[in-house]
Amino acid sequence: MILTLTLNAALDVSYEVDALVPGTSHRVRAVRQRAGGKGINVARILHAAGHPVRVGGLAGGATGEILRAELAAVGIPETLVTVAADSRRTMTVVSRATGEATLLNEPGPLVTDAEWQRMLEATRDLVTSMRVVIMSGSLPPGVPADAYAQLVAVAREAGAITIVDADGATLAAALPAGPAVVRPNAPELAAATGLTDRRAGVERLRTLGAGSVVATFGAEGLTADTPLGSWRGWLSEPVTPVNPTGAGDACAAAVAAGLARDASWPESLRDAVAWSAASVTAAVAGVVDAEMVARIIPNVRVEEFDDPRSNG
Amino acid sequence: MILTLTLNAALDVSYEVDALVPGTSHRVRAVRQRAGGKGINVARILHAAGHPVRVGGLAGGATGEILRAELAAVGIPETLVTVAADSRRTMTVVSRATGEATLLNEPGPLVTDAEWQRMLEATRDLVTSMRVVIMSGSLPPGVPADAYAQLVAVAREAGAITIVDADGATLAAALPAGPAVVRPNAPELAAATGLTDRRAGVERLRTLGAGSVVATFGAEGLTADTPLGSWRGWLSEPVTPVNPTGAGDACAAAVAAGLARDASWPESLRDAVAWSAASVTAAVAGVVDAEMVARIIPNVRVEEFDDPRSNG
Repeated sequence: MILTLTLNAALDVSYEVDALVPGTSHRVRAVRQRAGGKGINVARILHAAGHPVRVGGLAGGATGEILRAELAAVGIPETLVTVAADSRRTMTVVSRATGEATLLNEPGPLVTDAEWQRMLEATRDLVTSMRVVIMSGSLPPGVPADAYAQLVAVAREAGAITIVDADGATLAAALPAGPAVVRPNAPELAAATGLTDRRAGVERLRTLGAGSVVATFGAEGLTADTPLGSWRGWLSEPVTPVNPTGAGDACAAAVAAGLARDASWPESLRDAVAWSAASVTAAVAGVVDAEMVARIIPNVRVEEFDDPRSNG
Repeated sequence: MILTLTLNAALDVSYEVDALVPGTSHRVRAVRQRAGGKGINVARILHAAGHPVRVGGLAGGATGEILRAELAAVGIPETLVTVAADSRRTMTVVSRATGEATLLNEPGPLVTDAEWQRMLEATRDLVTSMRVVIMSGSLPPGVPADAYAQLVAVAREAGAITIVDADGATLAAALPAGPAVVRPNAPELAAATGLTDRRAGVERLRTLGAGSVVATFGAEGLTADTPLGSWRGWLSEPVTPVNPTGAGDACAAAVAAGLARDASWPESLRDAVAWSAASVTAAVAGVVDAEMVARIIPNVRVEEFDDPRSNG
């Protein structure tokens, strides 16, 4: 089973208005809301693809209750640890006239030290039955900067394969604990390492503790540098992007699914490219349609390339 | 006791951002939320001024639970009838750079006929112990257009004094039931009657069923046309407006408080002018500060004027 951890779970609220004009009053034409945060999005994609998955992390207050209820409604099991403060909302205001999206992101709940200790304990209990543990996204206020290092350590003790998918500083702080896989995009790779060259950045991440690095470069595809070799994956025919949000989560979900079923790297990467591409063609962020994946798969190219380190 | 009825109760959520720029992503610097909707705002003002008050109306879903909890926290008793759909949120996004406010108003829950019947029954039970019943604000989808007429009839049967504070069409539909007082502002007066002349509009409202008309005209003050006479109230020295939202609710609260304690019209109108003016000087919408009211009272002028109808 795969455990996704979301420390800064969110209620994603989406408003449609005719056109957003600052300083004026708007009638909201449509309201949609669902549980979000990167780890929960990963779980949603895995669940839709039929992979057994459980949601862990932190949730609090009335907003936390709403997102738990929504996960229950779609049938995704969760063991979210309760915090006292309210989980955050992320608002997306879409102007019907132009399709333009405006985002308003709340900072997240202030997590106490006692709550963080309960999170570690809960994870220790959960990971014993997990093959893969993926931790994704930002840290809420109050959580230690090396939160992912602590969680990686707990998961590794139990023999689980760990994946970390986070921004520069949060990712960098996780490396000393030796996560099996990290999944930066180009800006995150640069922010975590201070290096803009792909190969130099990937090498730095691995030197600092990452087992494998799956780096994503938007429409240009992805690379995987692993102890078993290095591969590049891309689409021979580009798709028409509708909503780029969530492509990284789709990629991470495919990698987690591949590790959970012991797939080869080329096979996992083929799925990662296809799931990401399917995700960007969907109107709703982070939805991976199986038929779309099947249509895209024949256009995915995966090729091994030479990396001095992986031949060592 | 005063009963305020809010059929379209809201959770008022306020975000502070550095500057709202459509099409971009914003970090929310501060989040505030509280129970709202005009009737709940009236109850909040009455409660703060020490008048016994109870909140009635409709509330539903997770948002309804949040607003009930907030009322309980501030000590305002409520008998809100539960509906299945979510109560609405109203979002105000304030740009720190300019102070500019952008509003996003959800439409409100779809109320079923069975829920509306329960609302009428609950009101029938409540009004027996109420001296004044004030119904304020918009109607949520599904509620009959003459909702306020039905509620006025229920309240009048029990001998309560009724006040209706609503927009054009909703106000117009309430008149046949004979509300004791209606409180339109200038645009509402015009929308409800199709007449732009004050006196003609007020006369039309009274012909259609309103007992008294308290009409408000922003900084120019207010008028009251009643069976006992007509008065005009205004400030001899204007206040510096900070937040015009909620001035009408402050006026309605003062009128309700006056009717509840059998005050004379000039006394009620003096308070209505002072409470409204105090409200517009507060940063938070609809807060009436007692010290500010005491400072403003000496500057309130109330003067009787001749209305052919009120001498009849």
